[in-house]
Amino acid sequence: MDQLLFWLVPAASVLALCFAWYFHRQMMKESEGTPQMVKIAAAVRKGAMSYLRQQYKIVGWVFLGLVILFSIMAYGFGVQNSWVPIAFLTGGFFSGLSGFLGMKTATYASARTANAARNSLNAGLRVAFRSGAVMGLVVVGLGLLDISFWYLLLNAVIPVDVMTPTHKLCIITTTMLTFGMGASTQALFARVGGGIYTKAADVGADLVGKVEAGIPEDDPRNPATIADNVGDNVGDVAGMGADLYESYCGSILATAALGAAAFIHSGDTLMQFKAVIAPMLIAAVGIILSIIGIFAVRTNENAKMKDLLNSLAFGTNLSSVLIVVATFLILWLLKLDNWMWISCSVVVGLVVGIVIGRSTEYYTSQSYRPTQKLSESGKTGPATVIISGIGLGMLSTAIPVIAVVVGIIASYLFASGFDFANVGLGLYGIGIAAVGMLSTLGITLATDAYGPIADNAGGNAEMSGLGEEVRKRTDALDSLGNTTAATGKGFAIGSAALTGLALLASYIEEIRIGLTRLGTTDIFVGGEAVSVQDATFFDFMHHYDVTLMNPKVLSGMFLGSMMAFLFCGLTMNAVGRAAAHMVDEVRRQFRDIKGILTGEAEPDYERCVAISTKGAQREMVVPSLIAIVAPIMTGLIFGVPGVLGLLIGGLSSGFVLAIFMANAGGAWDNAKKYVEEGNFGGKGSEVHKATVVGDTVGDPFKDTSGPSLNILIKLMSMVAIVMAGLTVAWSLF
Amino acid sequence: MDQLLFWLVPAASVLALCFAWYFHRQMMKESEGTPQMVKIAAAVRKGAMSYLRQQYKIVGWVFLGLVILFSIMAYGFGVQNSWVPIAFLTGGFFSGLSGFLGMKTATYASARTANAARNSLNAGLRVAFRSGAVMGLVVVGLGLLDISFWYLLLNAVIPVDVMTPTHKLCIITTTMLTFGMGASTQALFARVGGGIYTKAADVGADLVGKVEAGIPEDDPRNPATIADNVGDNVGDVAGMGADLYESYCGSILATAALGAAAFIHSGDTLMQFKAVIAPMLIAAVGIILSIIGIFAVRTNENAKMKDLLNSLAFGTNLSSVLIVVATFLILWLLKLDNWMWISCSVVVGLVVGIVIGRSTEYYTSQSYRPTQKLSESGKTGPATVIISGIGLGMLSTAIPVIAVVVGIIASYLFASGFDFANVGLGLYGIGIAAVGMLSTLGITLATDAYGPIADNAGGNAEMSGLGEEVRKRTDALDSLGNTTAATGKGFAIGSAALTGLALLASYIEEIRIGLTRLGTTDIFVGGEAVSVQDATFFDFMHHYDVTLMNPKVLSGMFLGSMMAFLFCGLTMNAVGRAAAHMVDEVRRQFRDIKGILTGEAEPDYERCVAISTKGAQREMVVPSLIAIVAPIMTGLIFGVPGVLGLLIGGLSSGFVLAIFMANAGGAWDNAKKYVEEGNFGGKGSEVHKATVVGDTVGDPFKDTSGPSLNILIKLMSMVAIVMAGLTVAWSLF
Repeated sequence: MDQLLFWLVPAASVLALCFAWYFHRQMMKESEGTPQMVKIAAAVRKGAMSYLRQQYKIVGWVFLGLVILFSIMAYGFGVQNSWVPIAFLTGGFFSGLSGFLGMKTATYASARTANAARNSLNAGLRVAFRSGAVMGLVVVGLGLLDISFWYLLLNAVIPVDVMTPTHKLCIITTTMLTFGMGASTQALFARVGGGIYTKAADVGADLVGKVEAGIPEDDPRNPATIADNVGDNVGDVAGMGADLYESYCGSILATAALGAAAFIHSGDTLMQFKAVIAPMLIAAVGIILSIIGIFAVRTNENAKMKDLLNSLAFGTNLSSVLIVVATFLILWLLKLDNWMWISCSVVVGLVVGIVIGRSTEYYTSQSYRPTQKLSESGKTGPATVIISGIGLGMLSTAIPVIAVVVGIIASYLFASGFDFANVGLGLYGIGIAAVGMLSTLGITLATDAYGPIADNAGGNAEMSGLGEEVRKRTDALDSLGNTTAATGKGFAIGSAALTGLALLASYIEEIRIGLTRLGTTDIFVGGEAVSVQDATFFDFMHHYDVTLMNPKVLSGMFLGSMMAFLFCGLTMNAVGRAAAHMVDEVRRQFRDIKGILTGEAEPDYERCVAISTKGAQREMVVPSLIAIVAPIMTGLIFGVPGVLGLLIGGLSSGFVLAIFMANAGGAWDNAKKYVEEGNFGGKGSEVHKATVVGDTVGDPFKDTSGPSLNILIKLMSMVAIVMAGLTVAWSLF
Repeated sequence: MDQLLFWLVPAASVLALCFAWYFHRQMMKESEGTPQMVKIAAAVRKGAMSYLRQQYKIVGWVFLGLVILFSIMAYGFGVQNSWVPIAFLTGGFFSGLSGFLGMKTATYASARTANAARNSLNAGLRVAFRSGAVMGLVVVGLGLLDISFWYLLLNAVIPVDVMTPTHKLCIITTTMLTFGMGASTQALFARVGGGIYTKAADVGADLVGKVEAGIPEDDPRNPATIADNVGDNVGDVAGMGADLYESYCGSILATAALGAAAFIHSGDTLMQFKAVIAPMLIAAVGIILSIIGIFAVRTNENAKMKDLLNSLAFGTNLSSVLIVVATFLILWLLKLDNWMWISCSVVVGLVVGIVIGRSTEYYTSQSYRPTQKLSESGKTGPATVIISGIGLGMLSTAIPVIAVVVGIIASYLFASGFDFANVGLGLYGIGIAAVGMLSTLGITLATDAYGPIADNAGGNAEMSGLGEEVRKRTDALDSLGNTTAATGKGFAIGSAALTGLALLASYIEEIRIGLTRLGTTDIFVGGEAVSVQDATFFDFMHHYDVTLMNPKVLSGMFLGSMMAFLFCGLTMNAVGRAAAHMVDEVRRQFRDIKGILTGEAEPDYERCVAISTKGAQREMVVPSLIAIVAPIMTGLIFGVPGVLGLLIGGLSSGFVLAIFMANAGGAWDNAKKYVEEGNFGGKGSEVHKATVVGDTVGDPFKDTSGPSLNILIKLMSMVAIVMAGLTVAWSLF
């Protein structure tokens, strides 16, 4: 029965891919519109694909280097599991594939969305949302497929008699985690590279076009406008796809590993198996419910804006409610120990995600006081807009942090049977909460991903001269996407924090395996020997003295906090530099190519695309490598306590910093929109100019540095896990 | 012999106060200049004093509330040492007195400095620097006096037979720490209130005066100009005085407490006594060397700018070199165990302080590339100035964090005899490093405090119409102060981090005392009972499970990181709001009082002073109370592990955030100055306007939120220490 239940996982993943293919085909059947629209869409597609090719080339080199390193460690020195190099590669491949497929769909969908919007708002929504759904379903489908494949493969090849039977699942699940590192690495490059690309183009286009030349957004006379549209695709679509693929798999794998670890001492292989497949099953059911939710997003032909919003909200809420019911059902069917309370942990995860999403909406939407007051601060110029935005962003960290803290404690207590000492099951509960949050990713990602499609459709409409009405509709779709995306962002960042915590426990498991591989049989706790096999999390904490009085732990924590800031600083500066090149180029074209501004000559779009591509590539390498090198170096210098300090310091500071940057950026964006809606003088007023400065500053906040921090947190953990063998060997040596 | 050595401490403190009085008298003998100068200085003095009176009134209410709370805890429920209410009051009183005396001197000195600068640059420096020295010497003098007084008093009144002899010094030193909480509370209100005051006035004056009306800084036609000058006094002088009083005493007291704790099990009361007075002796010798350093700052009559800089640097460097030599000598005389290596910890502290200072200078001075590039980013407008400044600030956190980490490890290893397991002595080493850093505070604070005096002198010169030449001289003095102040800031922030760590250990000691007071005799470590008296730091860590896998610790850390951001957000917003009121008032006066801009009518300065005063008072209460309430609430909900998580999370995030904000703010300030020196178009150019926006944003970064974080870090620790008894009682209950 339980074995049968497992097959639901690959089945759901195939189902997701089928529906993705179906939605893709449906979208392709739509007309791309006028020849001008086709031409522009082709230019954007070409730029986006050429960028992605370049990015994959560089990432390929990094992967090659890492695979050689892992191979030496695995086959040369034996401090590494022999499956790691291959698992690492597949994780990277699938993560990249998710981004690629999502972006391919998006670039085909933008002109079609614009064309559909010529008919009605509703038609535009249908095309854009279904295309977003392709991305959502590809990500969850490929994710679960990869997980199923590896689970079945490792189950078949790892001999049963390894140590004790309960160790087998432990080894399987922690090995699978290493494909998470491949996904994280790919995701980091995609997010950082894409984020730099899109914001260099956006900031560059805005600064010269909107501010200096006074032409509207997406105006075809602006040489950077194609690059700007390409940026939306490579940053907001491909980058986000790779990112969430990684979050999704990371949370499931970490929770599975925790499930295996929680039952390692009981000898109860059946219950262990159940704990391992529970997160996968929740995710599988989540896929089915997401598809139902996607189909539930329907409106009649002459729907108003409010109807559309309700319809989208209905789809996501339906999925969320159903997943709660389904979780109780599936864990009861599975007869997992303590199934009722563990199901409650799933509910906790969903609630935390929703609270963070609502808080994001409150602080960043122009329907509420904070952003309206931010607009008002523009009356005293750009400086007060910046000061107030930073203040707002910092204040907005309070609710999400409190929500996560309550979530940590509640899901820990529920799963551990209200026993703080039951660390194994408690941490499992935290992981389960993260899985619950991401279980309906199929639909939440759809509501997130269709925003950039609508944005691009708007660009296409503007450049093709489709007129005010169409542009207004695509803008409405875009702003609708911003509102629903707030929840999606809440889920992404909240799950990163919870997954980060779950990964800490996996790190300890990997240390256990590393010690065993090196022939260490005992660790010492308070002078007494405890067998490595039987040692609890507590025992490891005490053996390595991972307490808050150990200077190595404290040093690691300072370094972790610094990593978050350093990483943000590097990406912020990268955007600044790349944008400056773009500004120079746009100014040069305005100067050298006569007749651009009168519309008589066509600007050299490709040159701007090339500049963004080159800038993003040059700039993404250093921050990404630092994220990989830091945990390795910390491990070599400060050992296990230092690494754990680094991870926790990076996690707590990085989480808060990420929320600060995302919310400040979002609020600046909408404060500008609020003014553009006619408040405080409207477009063209001094207040508007002041809020445009805020919006420009906010661009790298919310679309480059902020979201990259999510990945940084998890990538550092993943690197630490994969390198645990080396850390252990080095400290014994 | 050792008892005799102790008397060096009160002797040095009296010496410091005598010299402070001498320098004050010397300054008062100078002429205040023309009647106009006298009048302006009187107006500034009146505004500053009236603000301080108001602030002390509010702080008085907060103190009253806290003293009642402590009295109930101490005399009602017996969960508190009975000396706490009184010690708390004296700490608050002396901290306030330091600020008051420093500010009083500064307000008398500004006109005299301006008048002296009419003769020569050198004469101006002499008056300003000696007045700064009054502040430096008052702070260290009152600090050591308070410490000596309490040490002698408690030594006399606490019976010898309390527990074991070695426990007596432990109780004395941890009781003394509670006067640190009084100082911290006073300092926080002074920094936050003063910081909001000064930046509300500064930002308000700049936004309307410089940007809108186009009149120069400190122009008498600007109604906010007196408030701006008052702000320099209440924020940069009184606030800084209270702040550093608290740092100075905090580091000495925490280290003394660690010294007592390190020898608690040895029964060696003599060595324990030596370890307790060692930090006091280092500080006492530091006072004498500071006075020597102050006298070494001499120049001949027609000294150039470069000579002055060299002369100041000579004074501080001389003190630093001498303190190294003197430390070895004094610890050798004291025959402290391991004296040579412990002296090395002092050197580590000094080196870390200097490295942070140099790094600050590199990132924020217009003589180096980072700030020059920041100016250049103004070519593409204010948005890129902000993006680049934030990037620069974030990058600049790397060197200080690495320096602190190296410092932590090195001073720990030196003092512990290269034994990581010797936590008591290791932490003592970290404390000693902090004391080393602050030992020459007498002179470093003098070089820091004379900056605002020179700034005010410039304001006075401008408003009294003393002409271009005098203004140029005071500007030169001000900018000279900025350079030397970088080192001072490095010392302040570095010592906050190290003192924060040392306070963690004191928290554990206070838990031990709390348990004893409640009659708990044993704690349990791995199932075995250990007597509370004999338990080591490790034992407490394991008893309370203060490991990185405990969800309470993790929750505390998230909350701690959040506290740093929340606190900054509140203070940033406070400045924004208060500045907006100021802007409204200045605009109103320009509109309603005819003839202000032509110089025919006098603006209503007092009204602006009143607005700043009211704004600062209203806004300072919430952030300050949050800092006090957070550790209490965390203790009640999450117990000891939660509190330690909160403190460490706040420390690591707060330290990095503080450096980021201070350096970004400093760099923006100097980037504007670099443009004003004639680069990228000079004053009035578009680049200049862009950098003015950066400077305005930077004001609350570097003068309100950033420096307040230093105090937040320590105040939260102090509150936790004072409330430890309650936390323990509550968790037993």
